[in-house]
Amino acid sequence: MSLGKLYGVGLGPGAADLMTLRAVKCLQSVDCIILPRRDEKSSSVSWRIAEENVGEVEGQERLYLSFPMSRDPEIIKPAWKIAFKEIHDRLLAGKDVAFMTVGDPFIYSSFIYLYEHAKEFWPDIEVETIAGVSSISAIPIVAGVPVADGQERVAIIPALYEKDDLRTILRMFDTVIFMKVSSVMPQIVEALEAENLLDCAVYVARGTMDKEKIVHDLRTIKDKKCIYFSMVVVAKKHRSGILKGKV
Amino acid sequence: MSLGKLYGVGLGPGAADLMTLRAVKCLQSVDCIILPRRDEKSSSVSWRIAEENVGEVEGQERLYLSFPMSRDPEIIKPAWKIAFKEIHDRLLAGKDVAFMTVGDPFIYSSFIYLYEHAKEFWPDIEVETIAGVSSISAIPIVAGVPVADGQERVAIIPALYEKDDLRTILRMFDTVIFMKVSSVMPQIVEALEAENLLDCAVYVARGTMDKEKIVHDLRTIKDKKCIYFSMVVVAKKHRSGILKGKV
Repeated sequence: MSLGKLYGVGLGPGAADLMTLRAVKCLQSVDCIILPRRDEKSSSVSWRIAEENVGEVEGQERLYLSFPMSRDPEIIKPAWKIAFKEIHDRLLAGKDVAFMTVGDPFIYSSFIYLYEHAKEFWPDIEVETIAGVSSISAIPIVAGVPVADGQERVAIIPALYEKDDLRTILRMFDTVIFMKVSSVMPQIVEALEAENLLDCAVYVARGTMDKEKIVHDLRTIKDKKCIYFSMVVVAKKHRSGILKGKV
Repeated sequence: MSLGKLYGVGLGPGAADLMTLRAVKCLQSVDCIILPRRDEKSSSVSWRIAEENVGEVEGQERLYLSFPMSRDPEIIKPAWKIAFKEIHDRLLAGKDVAFMTVGDPFIYSSFIYLYEHAKEFWPDIEVETIAGVSSISAIPIVAGVPVADGQERVAIIPALYEKDDLRTILRMFDTVIFMKVSSVMPQIVEALEAENLLDCAVYVARGTMDKEKIVHDLRTIKDKKCIYFSMVVVAKKHRSGILKGKV
């Protein structure tokens, strides 16, 4: 029996119709879709995005796997050990398996763990990654802020960093996108104030999803706990493209 | 008569099936699709991506507009003047108009000119931007290089820059994506050599399209003229995510 193929499928930022045609077709064709969720009582955020597009597929397995929300590798590792085993069993049995990720599979996605595990430990398994609309594309649109034009530079920075470093980056780049801002809003607001860029920043939570929230004055949420699916986009907007005389 | 609505539609990186469901539906529903091309003798790259998905739509206008390939604003501006007029005429006549862009409409896209023109000069016109899969997602997948994990930082840098500055950025960021590398490969290769990062770089031309080309040893193309749709992805790949013990 030939081995199954492993797919990493990007679902886009949350709205069901921002899935690609390729993602929908892949999820309709595989033998098994992995539905990741926080714990055994939760639903799967990924599956909520994909379900209406994929519909019923006869004989297709939909396998829930639990991944606790934790930054402690000792809590996360046992969950991944189970996931690797369950996925590998199916691939060895000749079944194609799709692992879904919100956004794009190669940008801050848990699929990267599976991809690198497969490359290292399952060298005979074919892996295909299907790009998705990343929050790096989708959230600036929700915020009404074009990301980059002409020769502008973009930095994408996760939540944790040295504050001085942050100010250097704000000076060197035209647009800075802060990911996973949940616990670090005070530091971001302070750095933006110090660089006189607070008016160039927009906060977006659950962009393109239900309960989307946009905040233009970051002072009002500086001390509030933000949710996981939140970002801050900072764009100096000194557009330098062709129509402005610079390319 | 009510005014038409303007759509900026991201088509994704080039493969027809990497279009989103929303993009296809939008292009099938508008009264007019703008087909951009270089000159009156060229076909439209955008339309080659979209055509098979959109199909025939009764009564829909498909309007070719020419945008010369030039970095000289005095050559580009007259083309945009015509484009603004043609688009505005249709919006005033109550027609919905879609402007297509390869990749994502807010990332190095010509739609940004139209978006900002509309915000400034056509305040009564409703504008909707439809995110697409950006080359920033798609090309690292083609290259087999995950972009960012855990607390990794990403820089996106267009072609022109100071060489010293480039080395600073290569030191500060885990992943650096060079856009529009066509004329600056010698500088990129020299900076990568100086930072001992040449083995971490991959060149991709026409990613996801026909005639896709991937080069792992950049020395071999250092002095060659590269095409417009080409990028270099540099990833240090010191993965720092949860399974590696750091988040």
